[in-house]
Amino acid sequence: MNAELKNDLYLRALSCEDVERTPVWVMRQAGRYLPEYLKVRKQAGDFMTLCSTPELACEVTLQPLERFKLDAAILFSDILTIPDAMGLELYFAAGEGPKFKKPIKSRADVTALPSLDPNDSLRYVMDAVSLIRKELNGRVPLIGFSGSPWTLATYMVEGGGSKDFSKVKGMLFSDPSTLHELLNKNAIAVTNYLNAQVAAGAQSLMIFDTWGGVLSPENYKQFSLQYMQQIVDGLVRNADGRKVPVVLFTKNGGRWLSDMTDTGCDGLGVDWTIDLRDAKAATQGRVALQGNLDPSALYGSPESIRTEVKKVLDSFGEGPGHVFNLGHGIHQFVNPDHLAVMVDAVHEFSAVAKS
Amino acid sequence: MNAELKNDLYLRALSCEDVERTPVWVMRQAGRYLPEYLKVRKQAGDFMTLCSTPELACEVTLQPLERFKLDAAILFSDILTIPDAMGLELYFAAGEGPKFKKPIKSRADVTALPSLDPNDSLRYVMDAVSLIRKELNGRVPLIGFSGSPWTLATYMVEGGGSKDFSKVKGMLFSDPSTLHELLNKNAIAVTNYLNAQVAAGAQSLMIFDTWGGVLSPENYKQFSLQYMQQIVDGLVRNADGRKVPVVLFTKNGGRWLSDMTDTGCDGLGVDWTIDLRDAKAATQGRVALQGNLDPSALYGSPESIRTEVKKVLDSFGEGPGHVFNLGHGIHQFVNPDHLAVMVDAVHEFSAVAKS
Repeated sequence: MNAELKNDLYLRALSCEDVERTPVWVMRQAGRYLPEYLKVRKQAGDFMTLCSTPELACEVTLQPLERFKLDAAILFSDILTIPDAMGLELYFAAGEGPKFKKPIKSRADVTALPSLDPNDSLRYVMDAVSLIRKELNGRVPLIGFSGSPWTLATYMVEGGGSKDFSKVKGMLFSDPSTLHELLNKNAIAVTNYLNAQVAAGAQSLMIFDTWGGVLSPENYKQFSLQYMQQIVDGLVRNADGRKVPVVLFTKNGGRWLSDMTDTGCDGLGVDWTIDLRDAKAATQGRVALQGNLDPSALYGSPESIRTEVKKVLDSFGEGPGHVFNLGHGIHQFVNPDHLAVMVDAVHEFSAVAKS
Repeated sequence: MNAELKNDLYLRALSCEDVERTPVWVMRQAGRYLPEYLKVRKQAGDFMTLCSTPELACEVTLQPLERFKLDAAILFSDILTIPDAMGLELYFAAGEGPKFKKPIKSRADVTALPSLDPNDSLRYVMDAVSLIRKELNGRVPLIGFSGSPWTLATYMVEGGGSKDFSKVKGMLFSDPSTLHELLNKNAIAVTNYLNAQVAAGAQSLMIFDTWGGVLSPENYKQFSLQYMQQIVDGLVRNADGRKVPVVLFTKNGGRWLSDMTDTGCDGLGVDWTIDLRDAKAATQGRVALQGNLDPSALYGSPESIRTEVKKVLDSFGEGPGHVFNLGHGIHQFVNPDHLAVMVDAVHEFSAVAKS
């Protein structure tokens, strides 16, 4: 039996209910900018051990809540756990980012991908979710997440990160049916994975479409948004007698917010390259908006950070449905004290505005 | 006395005049995907020697015209010649991209930047322009270019390429007046540089704002577009009794096309993340549009390339003012034969459509 939720600002804001002040959390809030994270990371030895050891994943998930007045926790994990569990063998080469030992090279490779039981091969994630939920003890809601089918496919086909996406786009243009088969498999896996996270205790969900923004509008709809739609349609949307809100985030997707809203999701992550006034106009109050301070604003002085926080709050303006966040993950070299300035400023300015 | 221009499709399209077929050229058309380029590059020893030796720069500028039915030549050079001439000492570390030995670190560094006489410290560029123009012998028009003030500033302050632009954005947020001083100096230098290129023989100009798209809409206007406006206002717009069209290109700037049009430029470069239908609607025929095939489409099969070319032409649709191009520079690992397929398809489909 999980403890009652003491701070539900985040969930209420995502339901576009009135809130006393704007809730705030930060993408990658558990991460390398925190010395206490680096300590646990070192102790774990390697990144995947950290992800796959529930006690350690729980510890780093909770770290930022000790430092900052945040309104949500997000599961510490990696977006590439699914393809790893499918057998592509994820590893992290020093200073090079994620790689797969067995990338997808052909239709046969796609056909051979196994279907996943997330409670089996991704049991470590579910155990982490349950443990974090228990340890949170109702302090704030827990966000579960996954990468989008397209974003997973980019890594699966490229074998790692990419600058020009030559292989996956080569497939997209020359052999779209193989790519669609892969995306469909990913969408099924993500749906099951997120539903298992909810069953394990996640109270809200987010789908990170980090690379949807490298597609043309037409290809975005066909190869990314269509499969996020499939996921949204297949998600359990209630748990513990309460709505489990779903947030979609396509980086550099500011032009497609209206189409994303049509999926029936509850909220959209918005990066800083679109003004929240325009995002609001595009979405017409049909979804909540989460964002959108430029993460590099945290490299500025404390005074400038306060100014920029105010600008973001003002750009959203009146009315419900805003969750404050950065427009992308917090950068590795940011001074944690600067994040505290940001979080405190959200508390200060939004409470005034709403009082 | 320069030879009369035999193919002026490009200049006419940029003036939104009727043309027999859609002109086509390709960003970075002289570059590493061409074996004949790699040969000259090797012969030159290092990249800057290639840029700064007019005979070699001329040779590689003309190479793609021998292979493909292109309607414009673009000066082979680097966007960082200006800060190099200002004394920042550009160099290329193997596999690491451009770097500066003496990056901008303070207000004093900005104040100390010398003003440039492009016919003195950048004489090698003007000599290349004159030589290329002569060797072109009227075949197609020659495009001169520069980086935008903001894009130059990112490299000058970061000391090279960057993922998060921590230093230049730190300056933007904490010390905007220093950044404005730098941008103003860059704008003056770029204006003089481009005017000198026109005097040396350039028949059209392009300003590459590679990194304007990493800014918020407000910051884009203040820190990038404002200085491109300053340049457009200061350019000589006629030479040899003919208009010298100016094209602005902000990568990931699809949301700002209307504001960019207001500068009074003649054309806008458009990347593939916006549909040309929407770009046309945003600019209302006030400028020509240049683009916008996804460069990674060239990794697809010849059949798929032809399909994608047709889609781009159809998305622009009827009416004057389209120059076919990729939405960004051609990638290093593209098969040159695939570019030939693209160029030939533009000739074939656009001539049919216009007949």
